[in-house]
Amino acid sequence: MNKWEENIRKVVPYVPGEQPQESGVIKLNTNENPYPPSPKVYEAHRKIEIDCYALYPDPAASELVTALEQYYGLEHGQVFVGVGSDDVLALSFLTFFNSDKPILFPDVTYSFYPVWADVYRIPYECPELDENFRIKPEDYRRENGGIVIANPNAPTSIGMKRSEVEEIISSNPDVIVIVDEAYVDFGGETVLPLLKKYENLLVVRTYSKSRSMAGARIGFAMGNKRLIQALTDVKESINSYTMTMESIRIGAASLEDEDYFQRNLRKIVETRESAKKELEKRGFAVLPSQTNFLFAAHQKAEGQYLFEELRQRKIFVRHFNGERIGNYLRITVGTDEQMKRLFEALDEILGE
Amino acid sequence: MNKWEENIRKVVPYVPGEQPQESGVIKLNTNENPYPPSPKVYEAHRKIEIDCYALYPDPAASELVTALEQYYGLEHGQVFVGVGSDDVLALSFLTFFNSDKPILFPDVTYSFYPVWADVYRIPYECPELDENFRIKPEDYRRENGGIVIANPNAPTSIGMKRSEVEEIISSNPDVIVIVDEAYVDFGGETVLPLLKKYENLLVVRTYSKSRSMAGARIGFAMGNKRLIQALTDVKESINSYTMTMESIRIGAASLEDEDYFQRNLRKIVETRESAKKELEKRGFAVLPSQTNFLFAAHQKAEGQYLFEELRQRKIFVRHFNGERIGNYLRITVGTDEQMKRLFEALDEILGE
Repeated sequence: MNKWEENIRKVVPYVPGEQPQESGVIKLNTNENPYPPSPKVYEAHRKIEIDCYALYPDPAASELVTALEQYYGLEHGQVFVGVGSDDVLALSFLTFFNSDKPILFPDVTYSFYPVWADVYRIPYECPELDENFRIKPEDYRRENGGIVIANPNAPTSIGMKRSEVEEIISSNPDVIVIVDEAYVDFGGETVLPLLKKYENLLVVRTYSKSRSMAGARIGFAMGNKRLIQALTDVKESINSYTMTMESIRIGAASLEDEDYFQRNLRKIVETRESAKKELEKRGFAVLPSQTNFLFAAHQKAEGQYLFEELRQRKIFVRHFNGERIGNYLRITVGTDEQMKRLFEALDEILGE
Repeated sequence: MNKWEENIRKVVPYVPGEQPQESGVIKLNTNENPYPPSPKVYEAHRKIEIDCYALYPDPAASELVTALEQYYGLEHGQVFVGVGSDDVLALSFLTFFNSDKPILFPDVTYSFYPVWADVYRIPYECPELDENFRIKPEDYRRENGGIVIANPNAPTSIGMKRSEVEEIISSNPDVIVIVDEAYVDFGGETVLPLLKKYENLLVVRTYSKSRSMAGARIGFAMGNKRLIQALTDVKESINSYTMTMESIRIGAASLEDEDYFQRNLRKIVETRESAKKELEKRGFAVLPSQTNFLFAAHQKAEGQYLFEELRQRKIFVRHFNGERIGNYLRITVGTDEQMKRLFEALDEILGE
C-alpha cells in the first residue's frame, strides 16, 4: 500500500438500485414515478435560453425556495433546497449530529442512514421494528444524539400516525428529530403541522417520487429558521451553487400544477391497491403501503429466487439481503400495464 | 440557547460573489464566461423529452465521464464528475485529507480552501506568496497531510510553470496533491501529462469558466484509478445521484464542439490583454493573468472605493478584504463592449 492511501477515508458505500440501460425493461426497482411530470415543467424547460447557462445559478435558489414556502404556507426562511433529499439528509447529518451520543434510527429503514453516519463518523444505534415491521415510539426515549425516522418507512412501506411521530419528537426536545417524508404524498400522515409546535423538528421531502422528477435532483427540508440557517451555513461551506439553473426553474414550475399532481397521486394509489390484491391472490403477504411501492414476501418462493427470475424477464424489482427482509421484494408501483406484465411473469415463475 | 443548538456544526461559510437580479447590470464579479456555450449544448437541451425527468440519472454519469475520458485521452476509471468543481474539491478534501498533519495551501488563493478544511475539521497551514504574489515551491517541502494548489492561482490570476508544480508533487510522494485547474484553459500550463508519472496527483477542472456552463454545475477530477475509486466510494456514501440528467447530457455535448470552444477562449484572451493595457493606461498595476480575470490595484484610488463606485454604476467586480489584497479588484474579462463600459466608468470615477 502506498503511504498516501493511509489517509483515504474508509467507507462502505450505499449500493443504489440498478439503472439498466437496455431497452424493453420494466423498471420497478427504484421507486420512480411511472408518469412524467406536469407539462408546466416541460414548458419551463423549453423556455430556458442558451445565454442562461453561462451564469451561476442563484445560490439561494430563491425562485424555488419561495415557491415551496408559498405552497406549504411557511414563512420565508423555513425552506432549504438541495440536490435530491439524499443531499439534504446527508447535509443534515453533518450539520445536526455532532454529539458523542449515538443517533437513533430503526434497524429496517432507508439504508443510506448508516452510510451517512459512517462517512461522517457519527455513532448510531438501531432500535428494532416490531414483529409487524412497525416502529415502536417508546424505543426512542433513551439518551441519544439525534433521531431519524422515515415516515412512511422504507422499504417496509408502512406509515406511522402523526401522534406516534409526535411522541418521539416531544420526548426528545434536546436533539434534532429528522422526519424523512420522501413518500408521504402517497397517503402518509405528515408532521408538517407540528413545525409550529416543535423547534427540534426537520421535515425532509423529495421531488423524485411524487413529483416525477428524480432526474432533476431536487430535495428540500422544512423547519424553523434557526435550523434552516444552520443547514444553509454548512451548505455554503461546501458548495454555494448546488442546484442547477434548470432544476431551480422546473422545480418551481412543478408546484403550479396541483391538479396534475393530485391526479398522478390518485392513479398510483389506485394501481397500488389493485396490485396489492393481485399479489395476495398469488400467495404473497403484502405489508399495508402508504407509499408508491409494495413490500411483499411469497409464502413459498424465496425473495432472491423471484428477484432473479423476474430480472431474467427484464422486470427489475429490488431485493435486500438481511435476516428479516431477505425474503421480501420491494416492488415500485408502475403503470397498470407494467403491473400486468409483472403478474404475467410471476404466474409463469410460480407455475400457475 | 436551546440544548439542540449545542450539536450544530459551527462554520464560517464562504461568501459567494453577488448574483444581482436587477437588469442592466454588467457582471464582472464571479468569473463567468461572457459568451454562451456551444449551440451543440443547446441542441442537447432541446432534445430532452419530458419522460426522461421521472427516472433517476445514471449514477455513474457514464455518458459524461466517457466523453471526458476520450477528450483528455485517459483510460476508463480516471475521471470523476460532480456538481461543479466546488463539489469535487470539497469531496476530495473529505476523501483524501484524513491526517493529523496540516494540509498546505497558499495564504492568498481560492477562499473556499480554508472553509472546506474548517467544515471537515482538517488542520491547515498557509505558506505566504512572495512579494510578486507567486507561489514558492520550496515552501511545500515541510511535513504535511496533503497539498492544494490552484494553478493558475485565484484571485491573483498568476500561473506556475509545470516544472514548478512538478517540484511540489515529486517532493510530496506520501500525500495527495490536488491541482485545481479551474482557469487553466485560458493560458495556464496543465499538469495533466504528469498523471502518468505521479500516483498522488489529482487534477480538478470545471465547466463554469471556459465552457460557459456555470448554470449547469459540472466539475470533474482526473487522476489514477485508485484515487477516482476512492472519490466515487465517498460520493456514493453521500448521494448516489448528484448530476442531473440534463447536466450529464449537455456536459457531454459541450465536448463535441472544439472549434467553438477554442474560438471562445481566444476571444477572451484577446479581450484580457487589451483590457490589461487599458487598465495600466489608467494607473492600475495589473498582475500577469493566465485566467479569465484581471487582478488590479490602482496607484491612488483604494480598492474598496473603486468597488463601491463601480457598483453604483451597476458594474459589479469583486473586492476581497485582506492585508495584502485589500487594494485590488478582481475583474472578470467580459465582452469588449462590457469592458468598454467599465473603462468609461473608471474614467468618470478617476476624473479623467
